[in-house]
Amino acid sequence: MNYDLIVIGSGPGGYVAAIRASQLGMKVGIVEKAEIGGVCLNWGCIPTKSLLKSAQVFEYLNHAQDYGISIDGKATADFSAMIKRSRDVAAGMSKGVQFLFKKNKIEVIEGTGKLTKDKKVEVTKSGGKKETVEAKNVILATGARSRQLPNLPQDGKKIIGYRKALSLDKQPETMVVVGSGAIGSEFAYFYNSIGTKVTLVEYLDNVVPLEDEEVSKQLGRSFKKSGIKVMTGSEVTSVDTTGDKVKVVVKTKKGEETIEADIVLSAVGIAPNIEDIGLEEAGVEVEKGRVKVDEYYQTTAKNVYAIGDIVPGQALAHVASAEGILCVEKIAGMEVEPLNYSNIPACTYTTPEVASVGMSEKAAKEAGYELKVGKFPFSASGKASAAGQKEGFVKLIFDDKYGEVLGAHMIGANVTEIIAEIVAARKLETTGHEIIKTVHPHPTMSEAVMEAAAAAYDEVIHI
Amino acid sequence: MNYDLIVIGSGPGGYVAAIRASQLGMKVGIVEKAEIGGVCLNWGCIPTKSLLKSAQVFEYLNHAQDYGISIDGKATADFSAMIKRSRDVAAGMSKGVQFLFKKNKIEVIEGTGKLTKDKKVEVTKSGGKKETVEAKNVILATGARSRQLPNLPQDGKKIIGYRKALSLDKQPETMVVVGSGAIGSEFAYFYNSIGTKVTLVEYLDNVVPLEDEEVSKQLGRSFKKSGIKVMTGSEVTSVDTTGDKVKVVVKTKKGEETIEADIVLSAVGIAPNIEDIGLEEAGVEVEKGRVKVDEYYQTTAKNVYAIGDIVPGQALAHVASAEGILCVEKIAGMEVEPLNYSNIPACTYTTPEVASVGMSEKAAKEAGYELKVGKFPFSASGKASAAGQKEGFVKLIFDDKYGEVLGAHMIGANVTEIIAEIVAARKLETTGHEIIKTVHPHPTMSEAVMEAAAAAYDEVIHI
Repeated sequence: MNYDLIVIGSGPGGYVAAIRASQLGMKVGIVEKAEIGGVCLNWGCIPTKSLLKSAQVFEYLNHAQDYGISIDGKATADFSAMIKRSRDVAAGMSKGVQFLFKKNKIEVIEGTGKLTKDKKVEVTKSGGKKETVEAKNVILATGARSRQLPNLPQDGKKIIGYRKALSLDKQPETMVVVGSGAIGSEFAYFYNSIGTKVTLVEYLDNVVPLEDEEVSKQLGRSFKKSGIKVMTGSEVTSVDTTGDKVKVVVKTKKGEETIEADIVLSAVGIAPNIEDIGLEEAGVEVEKGRVKVDEYYQTTAKNVYAIGDIVPGQALAHVASAEGILCVEKIAGMEVEPLNYSNIPACTYTTPEVASVGMSEKAAKEAGYELKVGKFPFSASGKASAAGQKEGFVKLIFDDKYGEVLGAHMIGANVTEIIAEIVAARKLETTGHEIIKTVHPHPTMSEAVMEAAAAAYDEVIHI
Repeated sequence: MNYDLIVIGSGPGGYVAAIRASQLGMKVGIVEKAEIGGVCLNWGCIPTKSLLKSAQVFEYLNHAQDYGISIDGKATADFSAMIKRSRDVAAGMSKGVQFLFKKNKIEVIEGTGKLTKDKKVEVTKSGGKKETVEAKNVILATGARSRQLPNLPQDGKKIIGYRKALSLDKQPETMVVVGSGAIGSEFAYFYNSIGTKVTLVEYLDNVVPLEDEEVSKQLGRSFKKSGIKVMTGSEVTSVDTTGDKVKVVVKTKKGEETIEADIVLSAVGIAPNIEDIGLEEAGVEVEKGRVKVDEYYQTTAKNVYAIGDIVPGQALAHVASAEGILCVEKIAGMEVEPLNYSNIPACTYTTPEVASVGMSEKAAKEAGYELKVGKFPFSASGKASAAGQKEGFVKLIFDDKYGEVLGAHMIGANVTEIIAEIVAARKLETTGHEIIKTVHPHPTMSEAVMEAAAAAYDEVIHI
C-alpha cells in the first residue's frame, strides 16, 4: 500500500498531524503499537485530569459545610471507582480519535513502526509478523516514556511510573513521589487528597521548579498545608524493596532520612522514544538525545519528519499537536510561520492550579530586561471570595521599555483556563496598557489579569 | 469642605472612579446612602455568585458517585447557611472597599446626594440633616434598581426583587421567576438546584434572550432537563396575593395558565436611579431615560459627569468601572480612548455558564456581513470529558472578508473565564487564523476557542 503520509505514533502529535494531512488531501496511514491516542489520551493528560476532578469533588464534599450544605453521614473516596472512571474517560477519548480516523479515512496500521534504509516503514505486528508500507513522507511521532533513575529502578510494583500510578489495584496508605514537576505534583496532590500519606521529594529548591519562584513557593506552602510532606533540595540515594514496604533513603541538606512507603512513584521526567525506530538506518541524526529537525520538522533524512517529545522543545501535548499541524501544512506547500517556543503555556492541574507562559522574573532579569512587575492576589478578587477560592495570584512581567508581556505566572482556581488570554495577547504583541484597557467581565477570576497589569503600572484598583 | 471630585454613589462605577481619581492626585469625597460598594457588591454580582457556588457544590454532592465518591447519608442544602455565607461574603467585600477608601484617603460622606443649582452637592443624612459639599467636578454614579412592571407590583414579601431574593428568611417551596435575563436565570437556577419548584416566565421566545439563539436554546434545554418549568413567549397578566400563595396568571401562546407559588421574583430589568438627584436643577439633560453624556461622560452641565447604569450602554458592573476610570483619567487630562461598547463581555453564571461578546449570528447577518461561523462542542473536549462537564459549546463568528472576530458565544463550564481571551483578541483586531495558531494549553476548556475558530475555516481537528 502506498501512502502520501505515514505517521508513526498516534499520540497528540501524530493523530493531529494525520487528521490535518487528511484535511489537506493526503492519503494517510498511522502506525500504532498500543492504544490509539498515545500516552496523553490513555496514560497522561486525560486520565490524570479525570482523577484530579474526582479529588476536587471530594474536597468540595469535605468542605460542604463552608458552602451551607450539611451531610449526615460520611463521604468516602472509592479509589477503584475513581480509577475506573478515569479509565473509562480515557477509553472514550481513544474511541473518539478512532472515530476521527474513520471520518478522515486514515488507515490505522497496528504494530511497531521502524524506518528502513530506503525510508519505507517496516511494521512488526504483535505476533512478530512484519509488513512494509511506504509513503512519500514519514512523520516520526513516537513520544516518550517515564525516565528511569539509576537509584530508583522502576519494577512496576512498588516503584512505579505514571502509567501504573493511574491503574493501581488499591489505594496505597503511604507513597513517596520523587520529582515535583507537573506529573509528580499532580499525583502527590491527588493521592494526598484521597487520604494517602504522601511525601514529595524534589532535588531542586522548590516544587514545580520550572515555574516562577513565587508560584513555586506558594504551591509548596499549599502542599504542606494540605498535609503533604514536602522535601525540597533532596534526592533519593537508594531504595530497598525487599521488605513489605519500600525503604527510601533521602539525602536532604540536613542529612539522610529513611522513609517507608507502600509505593514509590518516580516522576523525574521523560525519555524520548528514539531507540529501535530506524533512525540510524534511515540517516536521521540525533543531537543531545533528540531528533535533529529544522523549523518545519524536517529531519536530516529527506522526506522524514519528526515532531513531539522526540524533538527539541517543550515535551507537552499541545506543542506536539501544533508541531504536527505545522509540519503537515508545510509538507502540503502552505505558507506557515514557525512555532514560537517562547509562547507556549504550561499548566499543572493541582489545587491550586498553576499556569504560566514566557519568562520567569528571574529569567527576564538575567536576560537583561528592565522590568515592570505586577501581582494581584485572588484574596482581593470578588469572584474568588464568592467561590471560596482566595488562594493564589496572577503575576505579570513587562519589559519596561516597550511594554511587552515577557511572562505570566498564575496560581489559583481556574488559572489553567485564564492563561490562554495571555498567550493570545503575547502572540499579538500586546502591551500592558492594552491589557489594562481590555474590559474583563465582572466578577471573574480573569479580572486578576487586568489588575496585575494595572499593578505593574501603579494603576491597580483593588489592592 | 472642598474637593477636587465628589462621586455620588459607591457602586462599581463610583468607587472605582474614586480610587483612580485619588491615584491621579485628586482629593476625593464619595457620597453613599446605603452600603459601601453599591448593589453589585452587596445585592448583585457578589452575593449571587456566592449562592451559585453553594448550588454548584450541592450539585457535585448529588453527583458524587459519578466521580467515584460514596456518601452514606444525605446531603441537605441549608438555605439559611447559604444565605448567611452569601451575606458574609458581601460584607467582606464591602469592608474591602472601605479599606481601599482609607488607603486612598477618600472621604466617605454618608447620606443621599443631590446636585444643586450651582452644582454643589447637597447631602441629606439619615436623620434629615443636610450638608452641602462642593468640588471642582462631580460624577453621578447612582446606579439602578429593579424595574417594576404594572402587572407585577413588588410588595417585598410575596412579589419580590433581586434584593429580597438574596435575603429570604426561608427557602420557598415554589417560585415563579419573571424574566430570564442574567438575574432571572441565575435565581431560577439557584433555587431549582436546592429544591425549590421553579417556573421561569419569559416574554420573548427564548431564555437569556439577548444571547445568540443557539446559546439561548441550549440553556433552555438545560433548564428543562434540570426540572425548571420554562415558559417562553409568555407574560404575566395579573397576580393575586390575597391568599396564602400567589396566584400568577400567565398568558402563553396556547392560552392562559394560572400558577400558584410561594414567591414571585420580578427580574424584568432595571430602572436607572435618575430621580431626585438634582438633574433638572443643575441643567443635566436626560434622553430616553438615561443621562445624556459625551464619550468621556461629560453631561450637558459643565464639570458634571455621569457613569454606570444611569447613562446609555450596557448596565453591567465592569462597564461602570471602565467608564469611571476613563472619566477620571480624562478629567485629569490624560489622553484616553473612548470605550468600545461593542467589545463588552456579558456573563450569566448558571450551570452551564453563558458568556458572550460582540454580535450574535443573527445580528451580524442583519448588519450585512458575509460570515464564517465555527462551533465546537464540549462533548468533543478532553478536559470537559475528564471533568464530567460535556454540555455546551463555543461558537465564533468571523467576517469572511477580513477575518475579524465579530462575535463569540459560549455556553458550558468555565466559559465566563474563557471569554476574556476573545475580548482581548478583539481589542487587538485578531483574525481567525491568529486564534487558530495561538497554542492553547492541553487539556483545557479554552482549547474549544481555538477549535471553534478552526471549525469556521474547515480546519477543526476534533470533530
